Amino acid sequence: MSLSKPLVSAFAQFAAAARPAVETKLDQTLPSSSHSPTNVHRAMRWSVFAGGKRFRPLLLIATGQTFEAPFDLLLSTAAAFELLHTYSLIHDDLPSMDDDDLRRGQPTCHVRFGEATAILAGDALQSLAFQTIAEDTSLPVQIRLQLVSELARAAGTPTGMVAGQAFDLEAESRSVQTGEVEQIHRLKTGALIVAAARCGALIATAAPSELRALTEFASNLGLLFQITDDLLDVTATREALGKTPGKDARSSKATYASLYGVDAARERADEAYSRACAALEEIHRPTDQLRAIADFLLARES
Amino acid sequence: MSLSKPLVSAFAQFAAAARPAVETKLDQTLPSSSHSPTNVHRAMRWSVFAGGKRFRPLLLIATGQTFEAPFDLLLSTAAAFELLHTYSLIHDDLPSMDDDDLRRGQPTCHVRFGEATAILAGDALQSLAFQTIAEDTSLPVQIRLQLVSELARAAGTPTGMVAGQAFDLEAESRSVQTGEVEQIHRLKTGALIVAAARCGALIATAAPSELRALTEFASNLGLLFQITDDLLDVTATREALGKTPGKDARSSKATYASLYGVDAARERADEAYSRACAALEEIHRPTDQLRAIADFLLARES
Repeated sequence: MSLSKPLVSAFAQFAAAARPAVETKLDQTLPSSSHSPTNVHRAMRWSVFAGGKRFRPLLLIATGQTFEAPFDLLLSTAAAFELLHTYSLIHDDLPSMDDDDLRRGQPTCHVRFGEATAILAGDALQSLAFQTIAEDTSLPVQIRLQLVSELARAAGTPTGMVAGQAFDLEAESRSVQTGEVEQIHRLKTGALIVAAARCGALIATAAPSELRALTEFASNLGLLFQITDDLLDVTATREALGKTPGKDARSSKATYASLYGVDAARERADEAYSRACAALEEIHRPTDQLRAIADFLLARES
Repeated sequence: MSLSKPLVSAFAQFAAAARPAVETKLDQTLPSSSHSPTNVHRAMRWSVFAGGKRFRPLLLIATGQTFEAPFDLLLSTAAAFELLHTYSLIHDDLPSMDDDDLRRGQPTCHVRFGEATAILAGDALQSLAFQTIAEDTSLPVQIRLQLVSELARAAGTPTGMVAGQAFDLEAESRSVQTGEVEQIHRLKTGALIVAAARCGALIATAAPSELRALTEFASNLGLLFQITDDLLDVTATREALGKTPGKDARSSKATYASLYGVDAARERADEAYSRACAALEEIHRPTDQLRAIADFLLARES
């Protein structure tokens, strides 16, 4: 793991440089909290600006830049992915879903604004994500449509996030089979991560063979993301995590750590990391930035 | 009112001819209920096929045909509007929102499938609506983007349905001012009705002046729709309505009938009808089909 340290800091450097532009774009895209209905707009902003790492926007930007898209062309779509991701967090936290009171150290949206407003804020964030892409006149029309389609398929069912959340809720009531947990996470978090990477490449008009290799990279990156997230849930303190640690395991959520144990989960993370790096070898571009993201994820739970 | 009878039957004739194609398109567009996650897919289909009148799809088709768009080009977008409308019904019915157990004579989605599945089914219907438009390769790319943008703005906030629902919920806790109820309904039901009409015209590449007149028509049609819906809520029996009559008034929902009284609400309906018809005069096309829709709405509460 000692080798990864300089690469982790390469990602930190990239993230620090790119994040402010993402924050500004999110701020410009969201309705003003002084505009009516103020409660919904405040709830949307509360959740979007509750301290997210902007992983999906950063991945999209890193991918786009790998394939030589100009930074400015990537920003609206990057913001759209964060809006859609935030909607999913708000709805997942609801009492009838995962019933979470705390996220990133803050009260969740429904705790702060009430359940009805939280549902509406999530709904509006989803609409706004699609609107943001459709109205981004800096991108060619054909590409915008591809982006809308990618985002919609990664968000919905049977190929996206909603399907993953449905399987996850269903899995709480019974014992999960080996392999199932991976399928759940491929849909629940993987689909949107893969789509973010693909959309960066689509904006850059990457070649089909590059897009295939990138999809393989991002698919393993998504697994790595989820496994290390599960491991953090087991090992981190409440303070470092900003949410209730061990909650997933207690509520019999299907996690890698609870199903395979910490050591086997770490092995699975190493394997996903290796596969992600192998996929990058197929892309004949300077892929340092993408590799730095994989290194960052691998290192965060060790 | 005697004059309107043949026109009402003109609408019934048009609706009977067009509706089966809408039903087929919805069936083709929705994920199979035998495909996993089956609970979410069954919930989506349950609500979409719970006996809706398909008012928005029919309006979109009638408008598109008025401006000479081929029937087949209108179907996917018509279905997308019904998917989005159905998502809004599912979420509006939730316990934390309007808390409705019965719709169109059937248990509502969360009563039948549980709250978590209902939220997910609504979320997935919204994604699917945008996906359906983005992937409709029979339409030019520029038009598809316009349709996504129109639908998103009519769905979200501050210009759409979510804003209307937020104002409506807020209005329950205080006395509503004159004029406010109209603003609520312009957003809550009007925006999607206006967008449906506009999208039909956009697919037909109507001229800007025609689009303006059509927007004025549809805006008044939306008011007429909501006022007559409010009046039906007051006057109809449970059997005819398929939901609990008088519920809106009891829960201190802001309705025309409760705020102005039945007679004044009927006057306001007549006025909206007249304005809708006047707007049609500005469109130099055979507008009989659009007028028949207005006639149908005016007649349904008398």
